[in-house]
Amino acid sequence: MTEFFTIQKKDANSRARAGVIHTLHGDLETPCLMTVGTKATVKTLSTEDLKKVGVGCVLCNTYHLHLYPGEDLVAKMGGLHNFMHWDGPMFTDSGGFQVFSMGHGTVADEIKSSEKRHSRSRVLKISEEGVRFQSYLDGSHKMLTPESSIQIQHKLGADMIAVFDECTPFHVDKNYTRQSMEMTHRWLDRCIAEHKKLHSSQALYGIIQGGVYEDLRTISTDFIEQANTPGICIGGSLGKDKPQMYEVVEMVMQRLSPEKPVHLLGIGDLDDLIAGVKRGVDTFDCVTPTRNARHGLLFCSESSDKKIRITNAPFREDQNPIDVNCTCEVCKNYSRAYIHYLFRANEFLSIRLATYHNVHFIQNFMKEMRQAILEDRFDGFEEKWGL
Amino acid sequence: MTEFFTIQKKDANSRARAGVIHTLHGDLETPCLMTVGTKATVKTLSTEDLKKVGVGCVLCNTYHLHLYPGEDLVAKMGGLHNFMHWDGPMFTDSGGFQVFSMGHGTVADEIKSSEKRHSRSRVLKISEEGVRFQSYLDGSHKMLTPESSIQIQHKLGADMIAVFDECTPFHVDKNYTRQSMEMTHRWLDRCIAEHKKLHSSQALYGIIQGGVYEDLRTISTDFIEQANTPGICIGGSLGKDKPQMYEVVEMVMQRLSPEKPVHLLGIGDLDDLIAGVKRGVDTFDCVTPTRNARHGLLFCSESSDKKIRITNAPFREDQNPIDVNCTCEVCKNYSRAYIHYLFRANEFLSIRLATYHNVHFIQNFMKEMRQAILEDRFDGFEEKWGL
Repeated sequence: MTEFFTIQKKDANSRARAGVIHTLHGDLETPCLMTVGTKATVKTLSTEDLKKVGVGCVLCNTYHLHLYPGEDLVAKMGGLHNFMHWDGPMFTDSGGFQVFSMGHGTVADEIKSSEKRHSRSRVLKISEEGVRFQSYLDGSHKMLTPESSIQIQHKLGADMIAVFDECTPFHVDKNYTRQSMEMTHRWLDRCIAEHKKLHSSQALYGIIQGGVYEDLRTISTDFIEQANTPGICIGGSLGKDKPQMYEVVEMVMQRLSPEKPVHLLGIGDLDDLIAGVKRGVDTFDCVTPTRNARHGLLFCSESSDKKIRITNAPFREDQNPIDVNCTCEVCKNYSRAYIHYLFRANEFLSIRLATYHNVHFIQNFMKEMRQAILEDRFDGFEEKWGL
Repeated sequence: MTEFFTIQKKDANSRARAGVIHTLHGDLETPCLMTVGTKATVKTLSTEDLKKVGVGCVLCNTYHLHLYPGEDLVAKMGGLHNFMHWDGPMFTDSGGFQVFSMGHGTVADEIKSSEKRHSRSRVLKISEEGVRFQSYLDGSHKMLTPESSIQIQHKLGADMIAVFDECTPFHVDKNYTRQSMEMTHRWLDRCIAEHKKLHSSQALYGIIQGGVYEDLRTISTDFIEQANTPGICIGGSLGKDKPQMYEVVEMVMQRLSPEKPVHLLGIGDLDDLIAGVKRGVDTFDCVTPTRNARHGLLFCSESSDKKIRITNAPFREDQNPIDVNCTCEVCKNYSRAYIHYLFRANEFLSIRLATYHNVHFIQNFMKEMRQAILEDRFDGFEEKWGL
């Protein structure tokens, strides 16, 4: 498995490292935030745009693509890469997370929060076989199992794929979390068996569960490690807030041997990216940069919380770029006043310019972080950003 | 005024000509279809995109920009060019057309059709002074006069601007059309006076009215010509159908002396562009290419009516580009199947890719027409397209 992941440089004062994941569609430099293209598109951006803003890897959602247009059509069109015209590294999740979370707000809400669980759940039945659920599109009943998830992902054809797990929520008790984790472990074995049966060359990622409980995370970490998948994800409930999330990540990372690339599912705030990388995480994915863009919340290095709400009144006559330190095309060419106006006038271009900027900003943030690790100044990077 | 417009080549068998309009923001090659950017943005396209697809001139709407964000803000931001980051030639209409047509469907509907007039009119009062109307945004009462239209357009700062006219509808009788035309002529004089008062270097376009009546069109053509504005528009009702529209254009163009650039307001179907150019029209504007794109109606040279509805079932698995003969980035990179899917999935990117293609296609169509005129093969151009 060493050909899949190469570590280029380790930080002296933390578990941070710079590396390269070698995929069938080129090398992915780490640390990296994958850009979420849920339905085989990153909202408003063409794949030419993705390259221009420095996106290294696109993550698509198996759940959505299974429901529409369906993996069979995608396969017929030559797989996801060909279908959406993206020739770089690509990751698909297993569909499990969306089955459990659709209708529950954001990925981050679901992972981190104890609220709203089951309020609009479309899960009909969780059993040893798999999960029966209702399609968010037409209400039809569907079933996902470890085997079908791997089959679907095989047809979609991403370079990296994930095992099917139950994404254990935060509010459940330890007993439920343990039973859920144990089922996820049995599902892991079924996923690996199916993956072998298909003779797939996709890189499979096992998922560590165990909620916020150190003993369970320890059991799960060991189980996943022993299964020897090329990559490893940290999934499930990461706690009620950021400090607890960092604790949970620490529990896993201090135990895990360092050879394999580690992906932290659904996380991507600037402070979380630094906290994760510091603990040894290599890749992340998060909808926040693109979702925030659609709501006018734009990255800005000068602001204390690193973002501005462009629709606010003070930007009405502001001729500065969104972020004076940003080198993206949008910051080179357009003023805050114009983007403020576009949002207020409900013009499509607002979302496009905002998305372009936000994705460029956070990709650049990750590139700078990687460079800092390579040049022995990761400590300084954290300080520089004041996060 | 000869510096404003240069004729480079005249067709031997028709009034078609290739020329150059010299503006403060560069040369505009004609014949040309201006791209409509109603609210200081061409839906989904950045101005970098506009350059890539070959847009020569953007037309913005005074009515919309006056209501929001207001000409004072635009002036404070350095004018429309600076505000929207477009450094090429730009045209603004007078606001008159929108005042009279808002709520009446498309430009083409309004100009060509006798239906629906006054059904949802927001015009409160037309008087010698100007037009009182209700804002489509907040229902507030507003007034546009020849003087205020010129003042607003001066603040917006386009290179070419239009006089304020009453856009006479089709359904009214000849007497109304005559009175309306005569008022428009008086308004023309007031526009010219205001334009002089402002010492504006913008190129003013007079507008020929007179409906479908040859005697009125003759009077109006002579009146506008004698006013000696740098450019001339053909406005008002052009009849009930395409043959009548061509007749009306012919009435004007056979009488007009050929020195000045002529703009045909609100027209831009492929067949109309050829018919207009053949009769001596130099520039056009039309929302159809961008509006059609938003509804999945895409230009396609192979189709008998030169367009396809991409959302139709046969395109579900079609790996061809939208138009196999098109050289745009979208046709180079994306399949009909993917764009069909994006539309069906309500993804933003569908509209962007569709708009990019449609604008490229029609700009290319105009460039080819111009080249045909320059190379003495305009007749062949019409035949080639079978329009």
